[in-house]
Amino acid sequence: MISHLIVKNGHYEGCTSTFDDAEIVLFGAGFDGTSSYRPGSRFAPNALRSETLLSQEDYSPYFDMDIKDKKIHDLGNIEVVYGNTGETLARIEKISQHIINSGKKPFCIGGEHLVTLPVVKPLLQKYPELHLIQLDAHLDLMDELFGDKYSHGTVMRRIFDLMKQPYRIHQVGIRSGHRDEYAFAKSNTKLYPFNSEEFLKNLDALSDKPVYLTVDLDIFDPSLIPGTGTPEAGGIFFQEFISILKHIKDMNFVGADMVELTPQIDPTNVSTIVASKILRELLLVV
Amino acid sequence: MISHLIVKNGHYEGCTSTFDDAEIVLFGAGFDGTSSYRPGSRFAPNALRSETLLSQEDYSPYFDMDIKDKKIHDLGNIEVVYGNTGETLARIEKISQHIINSGKKPFCIGGEHLVTLPVVKPLLQKYPELHLIQLDAHLDLMDELFGDKYSHGTVMRRIFDLMKQPYRIHQVGIRSGHRDEYAFAKSNTKLYPFNSEEFLKNLDALSDKPVYLTVDLDIFDPSLIPGTGTPEAGGIFFQEFISILKHIKDMNFVGADMVELTPQIDPTNVSTIVASKILRELLLVV
Amino acid sequence: MISHLIVKNGHYEGCTSTFDDAEIVLFGAGFDGTSSYRPGSRFAPNALRSETLLSQEDYSPYFDMDIKDKKIHDLGNIEVVYGNTGETLARIEKISQHIINSGKKPFCIGGEHLVTLPVVKPLLQKYPELHLIQLDAHLDLMDELFGDKYSHGTVMRRIFDLMKQPYRIHQVGIRSGHRDEYAFAKSNTKLYPFNSEEFLKNLDALSDKPVYLTVDLDIFDPSLIPGTGTPEAGGIFFQEFISILKHIKDMNFVGADMVELTPQIDPTNVSTIVASKILRELLLVV
Amino acid sequence: MISHLIVKNGHYEGCTSTFDDAEIVLFGAGFDGTSSYRPGSRFAPNALRSETLLSQEDYSPYFDMDIKDKKIHDLGNIEVVYGNTGETLARIEKISQHIINSGKKPFCIGGEHLVTLPVVKPLLQKYPELHLIQLDAHLDLMDELFGDKYSHGTVMRRIFDLMKQPYRIHQVGIRSGHRDEYAFAKSNTKLYPFNSEEFLKNLDALSDKPVYLTVDLDIFDPSLIPGTGTPEAGGIFFQEFISILKHIKDMNFVGADMVELTPQIDPTNVSTIVASKILRELLLVV
Amino acid sequence: MISHLIVKNGHYEGCTSTFDDAEIVLFGAGFDGTSSYRPGSRFAPNALRSETLLSQEDYSPYFDMDIKDKKIHDLGNIEVVYGNTGETLARIEKISQHIINSGKKPFCIGGEHLVTLPVVKPLLQKYPELHLIQLDAHLDLMDELFGDKYSHGTVMRRIFDLMKQPYRIHQVGIRSGHRDEYAFAKSNTKLYPFNSEEFLKNLDALSDKPVYLTVDLDIFDPSLIPGTGTPEAGGIFFQEFISILKHIKDMNFVGADMVELTPQIDPTNVSTIVASKILRELLLVV
Amino acid sequence: MISHLIVKNGHYEGCTSTFDDAEIVLFGAGFDGTSSYRPGSRFAPNALRSETLLSQEDYSPYFDMDIKDKKIHDLGNIEVVYGNTGETLARIEKISQHIINSGKKPFCIGGEHLVTLPVVKPLLQKYPELHLIQLDAHLDLMDELFGDKYSHGTVMRRIFDLMKQPYRIHQVGIRSGHRDEYAFAKSNTKLYPFNSEEFLKNLDALSDKPVYLTVDLDIFDPSLIPGTGTPEAGGIFFQEFISILKHIKDMNFVGADMVELTPQIDPTNVSTIVASKILRELLLVV
Repeated sequence: MISHLIVKNGHYEGCTSTFDDAEIVLFGAGFDGTSSYRPGSRFAPNALRSETLLSQEDYSPYFDMDIKDKKIHDLGNIEVVYGNTGETLARIEKISQHIINSGKKPFCIGGEHLVTLPVVKPLLQKYPELHLIQLDAHLDLMDELFGDKYSHGTVMRRIFDLMKQPYRIHQVGIRSGHRDEYAFAKSNTKLYPFNSEEFLKNLDALSDKPVYLTVDLDIFDPSLIPGTGTPEAGGIFFQEFISILKHIKDMNFVGADMVELTPQIDPTNVSTIVASKILRELLLVV
Repeated sequence: MISHLIVKNGHYEGCTSTFDDAEIVLFGAGFDGTSSYRPGSRFAPNALRSETLLSQEDYSPYFDMDIKDKKIHDLGNIEVVYGNTGETLARIEKISQHIINSGKKPFCIGGEHLVTLPVVKPLLQKYPELHLIQLDAHLDLMDELFGDKYSHGTVMRRIFDLMKQPYRIHQVGIRSGHRDEYAFAKSNTKLYPFNSEEFLKNLDALSDKPVYLTVDLDIFDPSLIPGTGTPEAGGIFFQEFISILKHIKDMNFVGADMVELTPQIDPTNVSTIVASKILRELLLVV
Repeated sequence: MISHLIVKNGHYEGCTSTFDDAEIVLFGAGFDGTSSYRPGSRFAPNALRSETLLSQEDYSPYFDMDIKDKKIHDLGNIEVVYGNTGETLARIEKISQHIINSGKKPFCIGGEHLVTLPVVKPLLQKYPELHLIQLDAHLDLMDELFGDKYSHGTVMRRIFDLMKQPYRIHQVGIRSGHRDEYAFAKSNTKLYPFNSEEFLKNLDALSDKPVYLTVDLDIFDPSLIPGTGTPEAGGIFFQEFISILKHIKDMNFVGADMVELTPQIDPTNVSTIVASKILRELLLVV
Repeated sequence: MISHLIVKNGHYEGCTSTFDDAEIVLFGAGFDGTSSYRPGSRFAPNALRSETLLSQEDYSPYFDMDIKDKKIHDLGNIEVVYGNTGETLARIEKISQHIINSGKKPFCIGGEHLVTLPVVKPLLQKYPELHLIQLDAHLDLMDELFGDKYSHGTVMRRIFDLMKQPYRIHQVGIRSGHRDEYAFAKSNTKLYPFNSEEFLKNLDALSDKPVYLTVDLDIFDPSLIPGTGTPEAGGIFFQEFISILKHIKDMNFVGADMVELTPQIDPTNVSTIVASKILRELLLVV
Repeated sequence: MISHLIVKNGHYEGCTSTFDDAEIVLFGAGFDGTSSYRPGSRFAPNALRSETLLSQEDYSPYFDMDIKDKKIHDLGNIEVVYGNTGETLARIEKISQHIINSGKKPFCIGGEHLVTLPVVKPLLQKYPELHLIQLDAHLDLMDELFGDKYSHGTVMRRIFDLMKQPYRIHQVGIRSGHRDEYAFAKSNTKLYPFNSEEFLKNLDALSDKPVYLTVDLDIFDPSLIPGTGTPEAGGIFFQEFISILKHIKDMNFVGADMVELTPQIDPTNVSTIVASKILRELLLVV
Repeated sequence: MISHLIVKNGHYEGCTSTFDDAEIVLFGAGFDGTSSYRPGSRFAPNALRSETLLSQEDYSPYFDMDIKDKKIHDLGNIEVVYGNTGETLARIEKISQHIINSGKKPFCIGGEHLVTLPVVKPLLQKYPELHLIQLDAHLDLMDELFGDKYSHGTVMRRIFDLMKQPYRIHQVGIRSGHRDEYAFAKSNTKLYPFNSEEFLKNLDALSDKPVYLTVDLDIFDPSLIPGTGTPEAGGIFFQEFISILKHIKDMNFVGADMVELTPQIDPTNVSTIVASKILRELLLVV
């Protein structure tokens, strides 16, 4: 049904379940069409697959778990229609819907942050009370960017529109935005600026809810992940990320994504190597 | 009338005429939305401006002319709507129309090759008998790419559609395409594969016609210009390019463009340095 | 009067006041002639201008201020005479004198650290009791380097000579120098090695004084800003920098500079992206 | 029988035959253990696979053929034992033997040039009169390198030892070696230094013989393929390579290889892009 | 006696003692033959020599000492036999034995981590009660890697075999390994995962013992040292390294090494610049 | 007498004569103080030394000679006073004078092109009828650059001033300059633009004269040597360079230099690798 939209190309190390057996279904969505600064996140899904195969241990000493202990299927990549945002989002939504209908959790590898919208949309239909944890440097709450409603800079505003209720988007690590986005956040989202300290004290609201986790890699300090579209000074490091995961690991996650890796910008490949480790830990927790 | 579509940001060295005085009007169109391999030509117009200001002589020993001898106005860059191909093409067409209506020649700096279409479209209305010289590695004659009609891989096919007459697109240096694109070229365009040798013997058909010149920088050998979206082995070098210009310099050019420079891919900056020199020679000839 | 010494080339995003209206006057001094290790800071002023235009928000969530709330004029760059240190320093001094005479604060973008000397010199004439805060990895207190009195390695010693009074240079973050420079510092400057902890406890001496702030970007950890002439292991990160600014923001600043960015060394461009953010916060505080 | 020695990881674009149907069997041998200057050819087989999938047309205008017209199976990569030269060579030899025993032609993607030896060895048993065409910058005729018999610098000498007959190695494009290697070549191999001009006039000796073709990518000019272990000034360009192929395309090829691509050395990726095109043309000709 | 195994090539800045006068003897062992991910540590010894000569101060403000206060001889580099692991290890062992027999401390600059084995082996004969402090991201406790006993991934297991007694390897900063390596560590080594906090509380066992210190540079965060073979997210920074040195500086060190720098991976050169500073501090402490 | 001006740091491979025995004396002059575009040629002498030691054969198949057949001494590098052009030029002149007085030929490795002046100056005193062959992309005939008489852009004008006679500077490969420099060349130098074709037909004037050879590496195509200060499209390749050398090899050379390599700009290191080969051939010919 959806296989004509998918290009299959190897798999993430350790993600060897069949679709039917899987609890989590990974897929790549290498769309970077609305990136307004540095494009290139299109290359992330395959770069991460190569990386996990080349150099990564299956075992995480942080959670004393092995990636092969989880049932994960790697579906491949959505065929992106470069230059056609609408059609591409529609394809992602179809895949996400299909995974959810099959009783599994979608895990999307971007691509830019706009891909979160079509993954979340069918989840919101299934779980109307869904909360979203956004680890990110940017608010992404503009109503329009360059006159367009659909953009990496507006994606959280569009999800907010679908939620129709304030304070269900939990924005962690934010350190950049326009003045009016900050004003909007004040009365509409849970904003935990700069780092995760305050967020980790306020997890109760999330404890009995279905939760979606979106990780924009620019939450990390640009010294650690220079290979991202819009780096922002002053981000978190890997240890704080692990600490966040340890606090939220027992939540009821129903889907997740990791976005905004641009592998080719970093000639040392460290951005991809680190993102590959982040992905392993996310898969163990979700 | 069109100034709200333009971002002004310095100017190319030596291009200091006012709009009213100018014979040629330069503008940047940093659109790379349909690039299917390596995006980044969005950065070309500003990278070229910086380069011409930093290191480039105004004087060309190839044509014994100085860039300041020509009347050139640098309009600035079109504001691209990232993720919205239709709106961006419409804006480029408006600018091109405005320049042509003002009795001047448009010279567009891409961006990807699709930007040629909206520059040429109003020229074809003014000059129905227009011919087009395409210096390029690729045929760009697909009817669709990923199901879309408008793409860097279909742009010459769309221009062919507008021309409604065969053999008015002169394709020089071509060394890549699908089998059916080559078949299409056989009965619809003038194809001079691999280099310019045969082309330079067949210039008569062009001598009394209005001519548009489009230079896709991937016609050059990738050793010289690695900073391009889709490099192809076996291209021409700078000396052959100068030779082409010397042969065609007295034609009746009514517009031109130079596309597909992706500055950030080449850490030595030589791609931009060479493209900047190519631009100078083009401006002297057009 | 000074315009023949200036090359105007765009402006920093948000710095749109006229000279007459401005409170702060920015100018670039891309001089790197005495750099003894890795030259290239000459490219910093223009690289920062491009960067602020491409990707930077005007709004700072750290200070809840917008760069457009300040009255800043961008004068352009001083025309450097490459190979002629004396003439170049004289030109910088003329510009600085002109800005001060006009009742405005000079803000210089280097270039190497030696450019601080000609900016400070006329300020010391106006404010004989001037103090200087130096955020830096290096003492820069040698009396001579390679037999020369004027160098990036001697600049603080030359300023000390002009001050004729000890303990008015406050050196923060220092982690490199010769043994005899450290010895000199002991009895002549306020030295706060390695980080800002002790400095932030000793701000009283500065509270009622005119203060000049010089930021050598090598105070930052080289993981964050590899694009600098002489990187030193063990530097501060962005969060500590913001903390310093929050502590000193109400001081009586009469001038400032930011030096030693070498954009082309860092192919990820993160050094310039971070420096651009540092510049925004500095402009909001000074 | 050999599958435990193989890691399967996607396939080269268009190489979709089964093993049983195939005429040519491709396999990767990412061994770079004796590289004495710049290692990294271990990454070549996978880098080339990614490249062919991302950006390469199946159709060659040089030979008017499509890669899918040929029956090619991609076996995967030999599992290299890093640090154990003997065991790794033994594994390559087993694979090559297996392919030859199955009546197919082996096509090996290196790795360094030493991998040619174990591919050729079983071919020499089957075709005792085998000739070898070596496109290369280096003679590779040392008897020992650092005291070792088996090395990228001795590989042609070892093959010569197996042949037991002079003038059956045809060395084309050579422009580097020790004085004694040149002396050895004089009476033992057919040496065509610097380019292919003389070689193309002397093809008769090869016309009725089984021929093995080995392409060391350092035969190309280092401006075109900087991503190789030991670049040598003054190499051939792509057009000359195509000309060679056109002259030899009707020979009786019984095996081939392409070695010494080091993808990560070239941040523009042009080395891999060009090598990928070279591989396509080689597969069409062999 | 050993000079035929050595290539002499300049010296580390400040390491100017003769062999006879020296307390510490430095030598390079640029072997990277078993590196299973990114080779290139072969270039480290010379890259570090160049770096110390170009830009490094002799004086350390961390220990208030000057490198010239120590008596250090730089022997040069061992001539590596690329492709021959056994012979190369034998050569390193001969050099180490010679230095120890001469009553001096060996300090080896890798190369990959396997070089530690032949340096330690003769030390264990002289000091049977030797302890080893391993600053590293990886356990290196596999019994075999790709079927081989001698590898960068098995080196600590081989040293353990020689020690014949548990808990004498102190593994600090470890954050990667297979599940069974972690299991092995539990009952055989002192494991201080992730950082040095617990290690610094447990130094008593080491106080009266001969100690060898091995620093694998991948213990550092990959943001700081991207130029290493197998970077791991979540490492220590320079300040923590200095803190470790301050705690252990009075131990009875009998030898040391610093391994796994791959200079060419990091185009900013910061990896080498930082490693050069790490080396200075190590030499002052050992 | 001159040793206090010299920093000794290894030697070029094969250049092992003592000063007294030598016919040619090599020395580095890493001065790049007047570079107006991309500095960094200061790093060339040491980068070339490292390169020749790592990877270069002593034997040249182009001239069937071995570098060890020549008597060459490597003196080391002149200690440059960064920021002080006058003092640095004076030091170079002293070294050159000393070598000439000792009856040997100076061979200088730049640094920028201005270093040619102080090498040539004492040669002109000894050989008043000296001719100079300049292989270069640029005329370097400006009378002043940024108001300064001494610059890489004026160096040939200064040498012309010393010669006091026209047509003794033979400028080969030139393809860039101001209009007035071209005008000056017409009546004052022998100008062979773009390539060496005409030059090679006009060697008679040089046959019985003392000749100095200066090679500015930007004569080469920037695809081959991107690592240079001011790359110019359309240069020569290595084969043409060898052809030039073959034509001029029997001239009476009394000195030579090779300038304008900037190693760090080219991350593939091919610029340095090729320059190292160029240097070998130059040393064999001079």
